[in-house]
Amino acid sequence: MPLNSDQTRERIVTAAARLFYNEGIRAASVDAIAEKAGVTKKTLYYHFRSKDELIAAYLESRDQPTLDLYARWFDETPGSATDKVRGLFAEFARATDTVKWKGCGFLRTAAELANTPGHPALKAGAAHKKRFEAWLADALAHEGSSNAKAAAQGIIVLLDGAASVMLVHRDPAYVLAAGSVAASLVELRRAAAAE
Amino acid sequence: MPLNSDQTRERIVTAAARLFYNEGIRAASVDAIAEKAGVTKKTLYYHFRSKDELIAAYLESRDQPTLDLYARWFDETPGSATDKVRGLFAEFARATDTVKWKGCGFLRTAAELANTPGHPALKAGAAHKKRFEAWLADALAHEGSSNAKAAAQGIIVLLDGAASVMLVHRDPAYVLAAGSVAASLVELRRAAAAE
Repeated sequence: MPLNSDQTRERIVTAAARLFYNEGIRAASVDAIAEKAGVTKKTLYYHFRSKDELIAAYLESRDQPTLDLYARWFDETPGSATDKVRGLFAEFARATDTVKWKGCGFLRTAAELANTPGHPALKAGAAHKKRFEAWLADALAHEGSSNAKAAAQGIIVLLDGAASVMLVHRDPAYVLAAGSVAASLVELRRAAAAE
Repeated sequence: MPLNSDQTRERIVTAAARLFYNEGIRAASVDAIAEKAGVTKKTLYYHFRSKDELIAAYLESRDQPTLDLYARWFDETPGSATDKVRGLFAEFARATDTVKWKGCGFLRTAAELANTPGHPALKAGAAHKKRFEAWLADALAHEGSSNAKAAAQGIIVLLDGAASVMLVHRDPAYVLAAGSVAASLVELRRAAAAE
């Protein structure tokens, strides 16, 4: 039984996501992606007009699963908002301290596409980061933070910084240090609210 | 008058630095670098055994100038350590808020080489980041910070995070927000020391 169109598209995106993440955007060829997906190049180009469109689809496919993962780390940590932020970074430190982890796919794609402003994948990546920031601000507000938006802005800089430094030094101590700073931001906001 | 060997090497590194930074590590070819440097490929390979070695030389060539730039931003800001840290981020926000700026070359290279652990350029990049962190810890200690090492660790995560988020959103508000968090780290250390 032949795959239907949606299933074929999904197989291509899954193959692209794996190769783009493991090898890099430019290093992974459309040929290799078609081969990994088990489709012809013609079929691939039926679903995606260009490699650029496929790169954007890769990041879009990682948007919700990434948000879900962080939301789970936050929600499953017991305690206050401060505890939950610290827990999120502790889980991130564990998840990134493996050979398989090769950085934040969104940031690495932005790095590779730095010379092509307006690229659809840059827009997809920026939209994901904004959604993540909005989710975090909501989650902090829900936990009673007084200045959730400002805290979320600081925390996402710390989280992207932790991902970047982790890729450079492969030392989870930086991620945990970032988590302490992030937790103190929430704590400060809480202290300010209590005054 | 023919260039001597050191001058030729320097010209190649300068051309490589420009192309690697502007186009990316994989996108910039050895052919294009040789052409930009005005040397033959044979001459280029006389000085560098491989493109990988040239990528490492590119980052090594940016090590000291980058440190000098940040040291100048720190030193030239009047006031306390807190003011100087805030000033450093304010200068960074200005420097990055241009079309020409394409991210931190060290982080972008780490992102592109994420699938080649042990690459000489990854070592050069990590060494630079460690030197930067050691310089910052010394500078903070010199300004009277009580826990300069821990503060420096938090601040470099914020600075790399600011560079990463700036590349995604092209919005200097994130860099300034990171600067406020960084300044508060120094302020907290100072407050703790005064108790």
